[in-house]
Parts: sequence; C-alpha cells; structure tokens
Amino acid sequence: MNVLIVHAHPEARSFASALKDAAAAELRSLGHEVRVTDLYAMGFDPRLTRADFLETADPAYFKPQREQLHASEHDSFAPDVQAQLDDLAWAQLVIFTFPLWWFSLPAILKGWVDRVFVMGRVYGGGKVHETGGMRGKRAMLCLTTGGPGSSYSSDGRNGALGALLSHVQWGMLHFAGFDVLAPFVVWGPARASSEDLAATLTVWRERLRAIEHEAPVAVEPLGG
Amino acid sequence: MNVLIVHAHPEARSFASALKDAAAAELRSLGHEVRVTDLYAMGFDPRLTRADFLETADPAYFKPQREQLHASEHDSFAPDVQAQLDDLAWAQLVIFTFPLWWFSLPAILKGWVDRVFVMGRVYGGGKVHETGGMRGKRAMLCLTTGGPGSSYSSDGRNGALGALLSHVQWGMLHFAGFDVLAPFVVWGPARASSEDLAATLTVWRERLRAIEHEAPVAVEPLGG
Repeated sequence: MNVLIVHAHPEARSFASALKDAAAAELRSLGHEVRVTDLYAMGFDPRLTRADFLETADPAYFKPQREQLHASEHDSFAPDVQAQLDDLAWAQLVIFTFPLWWFSLPAILKGWVDRVFVMGRVYGGGKVHETGGMRGKRAMLCLTTGGPGSSYSSDGRNGALGALLSHVQWGMLHFAGFDVLAPFVVWGPARASSEDLAATLTVWRERLRAIEHEAPVAVEPLGG
Repeated sequence: MNVLIVHAHPEARSFASALKDAAAAELRSLGHEVRVTDLYAMGFDPRLTRADFLETADPAYFKPQREQLHASEHDSFAPDVQAQLDDLAWAQLVIFTFPLWWFSLPAILKGWVDRVFVMGRVYGGGKVHETGGMRGKRAMLCLTTGGPGSSYSSDGRNGALGALLSHVQWGMLHFAGFDVLAPFVVWGPARASSEDLAATLTVWRERLRAIEHEAPVAVEPLGG
C-alpha cells in the first residue's frame, strides 16, 4: 500500500508525534510505501490565498473555488499545493495524526484541507461523497485529546466524540470520496503514565498490521 | 456597546465582507464602538507556535497550554496575540463574519481561536463554560454557505447546520464563557440575485439595531 501520513503537532516529542513515527516505522516494516507530510516541520501555510494559483481566472474577484477549478483544468496550482495533490493521488490510505484542538483540527491541518481538497480534483462537477475524487482510497483520523474519555461520552461535557468528528469524517473525508476507517483516539496522553503510553503504541502498531484489510465504518451526516 | 468584529474572507468584495462592512457601519451609526479585525487583510498567521510567547516556560518540550498559562501569569504574550487579547477584554459583543469552509471555520479563523483563546485568560483553572473567562460577553456567528439551506436540514446531505456548528458554538464560544446569540446564516450568496442580497443586508442591519437587547440561545453539547 501507498500510505500518506499528514501530521500536525508543533512538538516533535509529543505523543501525537510518537503516533506518527510509530505508524511510519510499522507500516514500512510491513513493506508498505510511506510518505510523511509534517505540516509544522515544513512550515506549511494554512491560508488559502491567490498564491495557491500560478494563473488567475478572475483578477477582479477572488473566488477560491473558481480559481481551484481553473487550476485543475490548466494544471496551474502553485508547487506547494501541487506537491500535496500528487501525494494524495499517489496514496491509497491517508492517516491524519494530530491533537484535537477546540474540538476540531489544528488550524495548520484545517488549512491543508482548505488548500488541498480543491474543487475540480477532489470534488465538484458531480464528484462528491460516493463519487468524490478520492473514491477508492481510505482515510483515518489518529488523534489525541486533552480531556478524559468520559468528557466525550454522549452525556459528557464536551459532547460525543463521534458527533464532534462528523464535520471532519463526513464533511471533509467522506465528502471527498474517502472510505473512512474508525478513528484511533488517545485520551489525555499528557496525564497518562509512560507504561500506559507504551501500551497504547503497542495497540496502535497492532492495529496497523491489519489495516490493509480493515473495513471502513459507516459515517453519516449529523441529524438535527 | 463595545463590539469586536473578527472577519475571515480573502476577497474584500465578497458577500461575507459586505456583511462585515454593513455590521461595522450600522453599529457605529447606532452609537456603538466598533473594532474590526480583518484576518486576511492583516496577514494573521494561524499557526500556534513558540513565536506566540516572549518567554519560555519549558525550553525542552513545547506544550502550548503550558506556555499560554505561563504567558498569562507573566504578561509575556507576543504583541500580535496580546493585541487580540486586549480587543477581547474590551469587547462586550464579538461577531465573527466568515464563509463556512468544509463545515467549519476557515483555517485563518480557526488559528485565531487556537492562538487567542489562551489557557489562563480565556479558560483554565476552573474557568470554563458558565465560569469561562469570557463570562458576561456575547458572541455570534455570521456566516455564508456554498450550498442551499435544504442541504443543511436535519435530513439534508450536509447534516443539520445547528449540529455542525456545535463544535464552534459549544466547543469554542460557550466553552470560553460567551453567551451565544443565534447565528446569522446566508445560504449560497454566490447564486443569489443582487436584489436578494440587498434584502439580506437589510434584514442583517435590522437585526443589529436590536442586538443590544437580544437574548442568547441555548447551545448544548452533541449527543451520541
């Protein structure tokens, strides 16, 4: 398998970074090809601007989707966006490793979605959900939280994690056409013992050993 | 009232920008004090890094919350973060104007939350939700969508908008202690007629005329 890991944590020794490193090492040892996009390490700019495009479709009014569509048709994405699109096209599985910040993606990772999930390649023109541009590929979230799991239960203070992740799993990943694997969640690693963290890495590596054959989970839009 | 408008759109002539301009003008004409933070225009950096802090609590390991707490106790935030904290402290009402990108905040606005809603000032040490640092202040979302309202109904393809916004309204605004006003939502302005857009701006201005006395809405965590 070709596996792309998209990582977003500013501290290389964080547990989220350890999950990234363990995934890359384990998947390579299994014979998979792995590319790692470490957004903080590469200084990825999360801001979607005209700098994403080598050509301009409408110089008078900047509508991001229009420019993305134009760049998709004319192969005129800026090199940093094109490199990410090449990695996406290459990947059969995309793993996102990050800390949950404010019940969502860190801005640097949200900006990767804003800039790389482009109209014309990833979605648009009838390509969405089951017909999305990422059809046939799989994606999964691997995340750490600040609070304990009990605060993310269905009657917890933060709300149910599955529902909180819906805007990512349904609204970004499935929208783009990915089959979504169950998230790998580590509750409050900052408060865990080193023994517990080591055990968690073992569970993570074991899951990765079988991931090639893991079935996607059902993801759905949020009801009212 | 002191009103802070935090705006996130890369095109000054977009409808989201028109909503921002209309709000600033209307509120000023009513005698309120208004400050506008135009994130794209000021080149706001959404990435939370060590550059947010003038001092270092732990040089060996970068834990954002620990550094935020230290900077809160030592008044050592970088000037760009401190300026935003000053505006937050000054504001009685905060209005966020933005396009909904991928069912969430544009990265530049998510990064404003990551960097400005700091542990020690905005939350933490027992300050959360009803006791959050923003207690007594009000906040509201004013947003534009790409798709029509029907796609955001409780059985719509995108999911129910209120549930989608929960990670922002409950997880960010209410978490920080704000009372949350009902969002002002404009469905698909890119496809609307100029007459409809003008009428929408009229409705928006009328709502702002009474906003000083508007009651907050109930926001809740997402159930399972």
